[in-house]
Amino acid sequence: MEQGRTGETAVIFIAERTAEDDAGYAAAAAAMDALAAAQPGYRGIDSVRGGDQVGITVSYWADEASAVAWRKHPEHAAIREAGRERWYRWYRLHVAQVGRSYGWERP
Amino acid sequence: MEQGRTGETAVIFIAERTAEDDAGYAAAAAAMDALAAAQPGYRGIDSVRGGDQVGITVSYWADEASAVAWRKHPEHAAIREAGRERWYRWYRLHVAQVGRSYGWERP
Repeated sequence: MEQGRTGETAVIFIAERTAEDDAGYAAAAAAMDALAAAQPGYRGIDSVRGGDQVGITVSYWADEASAVAWRKHPEHAAIREAGRERWYRWYRLHVAQVGRSYGWERP
Repeated sequence: MEQGRTGETAVIFIAERTAEDDAGYAAAAAAMDALAAAQPGYRGIDSVRGGDQVGITVSYWADEASAVAWRKHPEHAAIREAGRERWYRWYRLHVAQVGRSYGWERP
């Protein structure tokens, strides 16, 4: 049993991609993953995209303040603008405090 | 801007499927989605599985109590056992309280 995420801030990002600019999107996504991982308070990420172009990314942060600081990071803000202009049809974002955390792995 | 999920309880479930029993898994997943949607306090679900068999499902509940009641539902508990025996290599589960919620849609 993993208690690892209890007390962390989870940023749940659900989005549908457009069919536009796959290469630009992939490059930006990789750059943002690397930049996020270098921020104070970064604790990890889970990210999945399905065949229907809908993806869910959950990033985990030590606390609300580090999640907010990442949201305000100038490069992140610039990429967000590009996301709205080219890459996403819609997105939803939920910022949540993890109260309980479990894990299981096949023995 | 959607404020819809503020105050809700988000149950973040991240799992890798085995290669076993696709039909049984699909039937059980559909049955569980329908049963969850019928529970008191159910507010919605976002679910994505990628080509690598890793999936993220986030279910939303009115409050912690309704999320806990769903976890304890006898049919849900039975299916969870089957999941550990046949369908999943591993999973992680985080229960989190949504403090802020945004949405954007292409105009």
